[in-house]
Amino acid sequence: MPERSLRSDQVVGDEVSLSELPLREDLRGATPYGAPQLDVEFRLNTNENPYPPPPALVADVTQAVAEAATALHRYPDRDAVALRTDLAAYLSSSTGVPLRTENLWAANGSNEILQQLLQAFGGPGRTALGFEPSYSMHPIIAAGTRTEWAPTPRRADFTLDTDAAAEVLASRAPDIAFVTSPNNPTGGSIPLDGLRTLIEAAPGLIVVDEAYAEFSSQTSAVTVLAEYPAKLVVSRTMSKAFAFAGGRLGYLAAAPAIVDALQLVRLPYHLSVVTQAAARAALRHADETLASVHMLAAERDRVVESLRGLGFSVVPSDANFVLFGQFADAPTTWRSYLDQGVLIRDVGIPGHLRVTIGTPAENDAFLAASKEIVR
Amino acid sequence: MPERSLRSDQVVGDEVSLSELPLREDLRGATPYGAPQLDVEFRLNTNENPYPPPPALVADVTQAVAEAATALHRYPDRDAVALRTDLAAYLSSSTGVPLRTENLWAANGSNEILQQLLQAFGGPGRTALGFEPSYSMHPIIAAGTRTEWAPTPRRADFTLDTDAAAEVLASRAPDIAFVTSPNNPTGGSIPLDGLRTLIEAAPGLIVVDEAYAEFSSQTSAVTVLAEYPAKLVVSRTMSKAFAFAGGRLGYLAAAPAIVDALQLVRLPYHLSVVTQAAARAALRHADETLASVHMLAAERDRVVESLRGLGFSVVPSDANFVLFGQFADAPTTWRSYLDQGVLIRDVGIPGHLRVTIGTPAENDAFLAASKEIVR
Repeated sequence: MPERSLRSDQVVGDEVSLSELPLREDLRGATPYGAPQLDVEFRLNTNENPYPPPPALVADVTQAVAEAATALHRYPDRDAVALRTDLAAYLSSSTGVPLRTENLWAANGSNEILQQLLQAFGGPGRTALGFEPSYSMHPIIAAGTRTEWAPTPRRADFTLDTDAAAEVLASRAPDIAFVTSPNNPTGGSIPLDGLRTLIEAAPGLIVVDEAYAEFSSQTSAVTVLAEYPAKLVVSRTMSKAFAFAGGRLGYLAAAPAIVDALQLVRLPYHLSVVTQAAARAALRHADETLASVHMLAAERDRVVESLRGLGFSVVPSDANFVLFGQFADAPTTWRSYLDQGVLIRDVGIPGHLRVTIGTPAENDAFLAASKEIVR
Repeated sequence: MPERSLRSDQVVGDEVSLSELPLREDLRGATPYGAPQLDVEFRLNTNENPYPPPPALVADVTQAVAEAATALHRYPDRDAVALRTDLAAYLSSSTGVPLRTENLWAANGSNEILQQLLQAFGGPGRTALGFEPSYSMHPIIAAGTRTEWAPTPRRADFTLDTDAAAEVLASRAPDIAFVTSPNNPTGGSIPLDGLRTLIEAAPGLIVVDEAYAEFSSQTSAVTVLAEYPAKLVVSRTMSKAFAFAGGRLGYLAAAPAIVDALQLVRLPYHLSVVTQAAARAALRHADETLASVHMLAAERDRVVESLRGLGFSVVPSDANFVLFGQFADAPTTWRSYLDQGVLIRDVGIPGHLRVTIGTPAENDAFLAASKEIVR
């Protein structure tokens, strides 16, 4: 066997290109999902909460991790019972529904929650449906689990015609339908009556993705879980209102049997001791963290009004972001914002861009840039 | 809509059973993977490192998390560049192969690494092969990604006949083959020459699962990565030798194009800021943590010798566990150990049980129980 020697600047294996690998066919030519992570002064592109965790939360997370770290050599609680119990307490108190540990499930971000749902209830020969434009990870996770994706359009103003949607659900009969409330990237919520119409029409599972629920004035779908236990799943995240995007904690509420189903597909020990400890500590500070929700909602209303004052059209939003336009060429306008140090999001909707609501100073910077852009 | 009222002891949705849900067909009747998590004095069942992290490591993890926690409201680095750079440095120094950041990929445990590999290179219509008995998650993750599983038997003594295995690889032509070295749960490693035979025969990817590599005296497959960049992937974990099972950090080394492929299927932001920070801190203490490897190898040899002295047959092991027998009824013997406060593992191999090597005191307890059992 001849010795192989590498030049000092050569990377092991870099002579092989992606196109030479036996990648599965549907991934050929794909590019990785993700907004650009750019080092820009004003980052208003990924719907994060702009307020850093309060010092008391940081101290509590640190203390919790310090304790958990002494047992890092041991596997975590595979069922994350303590964390799920705390999540049940939070969600019960915020929705008024008496949820128990066995109603809750948690994973590394709501993406992993959705992936597990599709692994258990979707897959080859099954179909998942979403009302687009919506969260762009839904079709990607469907593809990752080989679930056929059935995109169904919203109205031109991005609202959901629930009667028409119910007809599609009844006729198309997807195994899983995603209903986002508020919807990302457009911002609107679905009232409970409309949601009931959808659930009653759908023969399969309805996953209500409530990633932005804390920002919305609509009643949570959790309040109708007891009515539709075999059909309804409500997914949530600590990434947005909870200011815990870096901690990666998604969760869901559902009937215990649905949680049992996910335990058949979850990777064992998927949640680290550190994640479990940090999330529990963050939950103990929910009141402080969620106080930012009101500020952000007020700022959202200010941004919307200012944008309208500048002549933009703005899609009504219940969330911590706003979709606005119209632009002759959204990618070029996105670049103009970036040139002014403001990173927003081109979500691929022609003529529109999405801005996350930041601190008042960040929003001022965004509005100042917007003023330049309409000039 | 009538009000639904819950009895105080009733769980929302508990009237629905798993069998009523539209679970995918191949999951019906399945039970969740996982060894019993029992509160027993001597836990020698999941191949953890019995030595708690040294205080300096705990302090460093805590400090790192304290810093990271101030930015918990922001998403983590999606590409985990700093962590992958540190992993490259560790693996380069321990194997002598000059690896770069772009050769490394990391995820929440090596299970997630393997799942991503199967999502990118396996799936419906494709086949993954393993030499059994082996790591029981391989077929489970294959099923989770709908990859056909092709189990191929080892010799009766659990060693791998590499010439016969090469013939199977050539004729069966799996898209992915898992080669474990050392093999869990039997303990043997594959010498580099045998590995080359397998790689050269296989038309598809070879994933060498080196979860227990630090305990083995065999040369790592990383040393032949440059020879087989389009075929070879080496997966590793921090769960075992690194005493970081609770931190959930698996990783792999491969050609950069393979890492690119995984970025097409990974869930965005899969590694939390806390996980990235904690793993980097733990890597800074690799020398201290890995010092336990020598103690554990010496203890393993002592346990093997003692078991043989008691009349057990013991499978030669390069890892931190030992498979031993013969038992007329392994489940009953497993229970006898448990009754004596020693939790070991029934891995489903008739007549055999697996014990993880613990501290000297834990091993003494296990050997004392073993003495009772042969009596």
